[in-house]
Amino acid sequence: MSAFPAITPPDAQALQAALARQNTLTKPPGALGRLEALSVWVASCQGVCPPRQFTRARVVVFAGDHGVTASGVSAFPSEVTPQMVANFDAGGAAINVLATLADATVRVADIAVDAEPLSPAIGAHKVRRGSGNIAIEDALSEAETTAAIQAGRAIADEEVDGGADLLIAGDMGIGNTTPATTLIAAATRSEPVAVIGRGTGIDDTGWARKVSAIRDALYRARTVTGDPEALLRVCGGADLAAMAGFLAQAAVRRTPVLLDGVVVTAAALIADLLAPGARAWWQAGHRSTEPAHTLALDHLGLVPIVDLGMRLGEGTGAAVALPVVRAAVATLASMATFDEAGVSDA
Amino acid sequence: MSAFPAITPPDAQALQAALARQNTLTKPPGALGRLEALSVWVASCQGVCPPRQFTRARVVVFAGDHGVTASGVSAFPSEVTPQMVANFDAGGAAINVLATLADATVRVADIAVDAEPLSPAIGAHKVRRGSGNIAIEDALSEAETTAAIQAGRAIADEEVDGGADLLIAGDMGIGNTTPATTLIAAATRSEPVAVIGRGTGIDDTGWARKVSAIRDALYRARTVTGDPEALLRVCGGADLAAMAGFLAQAAVRRTPVLLDGVVVTAAALIADLLAPGARAWWQAGHRSTEPAHTLALDHLGLVPIVDLGMRLGEGTGAAVALPVVRAAVATLASMATFDEAGVSDA
Repeated sequence: MSAFPAITPPDAQALQAALARQNTLTKPPGALGRLEALSVWVASCQGVCPPRQFTRARVVVFAGDHGVTASGVSAFPSEVTPQMVANFDAGGAAINVLATLADATVRVADIAVDAEPLSPAIGAHKVRRGSGNIAIEDALSEAETTAAIQAGRAIADEEVDGGADLLIAGDMGIGNTTPATTLIAAATRSEPVAVIGRGTGIDDTGWARKVSAIRDALYRARTVTGDPEALLRVCGGADLAAMAGFLAQAAVRRTPVLLDGVVVTAAALIADLLAPGARAWWQAGHRSTEPAHTLALDHLGLVPIVDLGMRLGEGTGAAVALPVVRAAVATLASMATFDEAGVSDA
Repeated sequence: MSAFPAITPPDAQALQAALARQNTLTKPPGALGRLEALSVWVASCQGVCPPRQFTRARVVVFAGDHGVTASGVSAFPSEVTPQMVANFDAGGAAINVLATLADATVRVADIAVDAEPLSPAIGAHKVRRGSGNIAIEDALSEAETTAAIQAGRAIADEEVDGGADLLIAGDMGIGNTTPATTLIAAATRSEPVAVIGRGTGIDDTGWARKVSAIRDALYRARTVTGDPEALLRVCGGADLAAMAGFLAQAAVRRTPVLLDGVVVTAAALIADLLAPGARAWWQAGHRSTEPAHTLALDHLGLVPIVDLGMRLGEGTGAAVALPVVRAAVATLASMATFDEAGVSDA
């Protein structure tokens, strides 16, 4: 069992102060729309109004392979997972480019890649090589599940202790939309066919194989749908368990998070079961094209900041949303008030 | 008459090269969604692949007052227009904060504010003090209309000659959603009640007065709905005419533009009539809450980049979208290819 302490909500006093300050700024009340809501959220997370601009926004990409790729559920071979870890390390992937533009830095953590770790630092929290094929076996043992959740918690602690004031979880792992979709369907008791997407771009026959694998995994998980840790063990994976631990621990540490796509949001759905109320510390960065992503966001009551038809993972959708959150913070922190500017109110 | 030269489309060869390059980058084809389309658009506008990151993105806020405020169509008094011009000049408005964050600079042009210009530079292209009350009279004379369009063209030329590689038009003017909505309803032959919004936040009785003013203006414009320049004269205004000239001239100068909200998009609708094909040089930055904005975007065939419930004008919605366009450029320009990174293709 991975017991999390009770989650406390963001600060109510800073929230009220932020709402009040918004109405003194030189614009009609509400005219900045979602930016106003985001600015109030950041102020309440930071416990201060006006909020501070983020000085150390940090993306952690959780990498892991999945035995279910043996069932032909992905358009890409598993060897791509370690190749992409090397691409992240070299700075050539989309998340590197997008994080740089959003003034964030990227860390990659090999949780369960089916290869030797690229470096000791990247492999510092590795749980195993690949997770089990959830169509026919548990993804993890009980001990591995606990270890993976703990790995994510430790990474969150390392980042917050290192000064991170905004966290983004990203994913990399060929086949990972299969366990992610299974977790979402199981946790929300949904008909899987309605929510299974194309992942990296699988064709119709591959999609049918993916449906079959997810149905088998859901059947295996039918007795544990109420138990978040058991779900991660039976039909999740080490990377998903680590992300869940990371997202829950971010809330424990009162650090705001931007969620990314279907894989991270599947982990978030489980994290909010492990640590009820954690969702108050998260915003949905974007809406991806994966149908299960929308289902999970709706279940969490989160509205995506951008909706750009992206489906890459890595934290890329959240990285594209980060400048919008920065814009929200900047307006609340830096705009002139009606009094300061000598502008007449309505 | 303000004759524009024929608009040439963005470069087809750079467009094809950008499409081809997208498929070599280390991600599944199409996985960056709208970012891919935006990157291809920028490459085609610049005529080069990979595209260059914008080095001088420029916001021009067109300020003007409107006689129709005498009909009680706005929640704010007209004195706010010159006060906000001073706020822009002092750097305290939302657009200043958002442009800085998006690495853009702001220029304010007093086209028809009902006050003396704040400075010679700001008033360099001033046409008159306030436009006429479109409910009862023409907004402008023929000569003023031509002068206002020419003012916008001159500003676009000044900015492009000054090195601007991306342009954003913004608006400031109490009452300006009334002529903007009238122009959109007239140009699209739409029932006005369906598209009249709340502007800065007018109440129900104010909204009824706004409907009445727009109906009167549309009646006055009934014989000129096919003539874009006459529409600007009869039911537009000097600021709207200048914006239309600016947007059309940006296309003449092959310079990409991000459109903002309902006022700028009303001017864009007219600009594409003045200079057919100009729309190919524009992207819609955002969708505001004004119903006429969506109508105008649909008519132009433009899909907004973000949809954040904003309704401030000033160029703020486009400024929030600019980092997304920068992200698009950066990914196409800077991501590693499959070959470079040694990553296996699908």
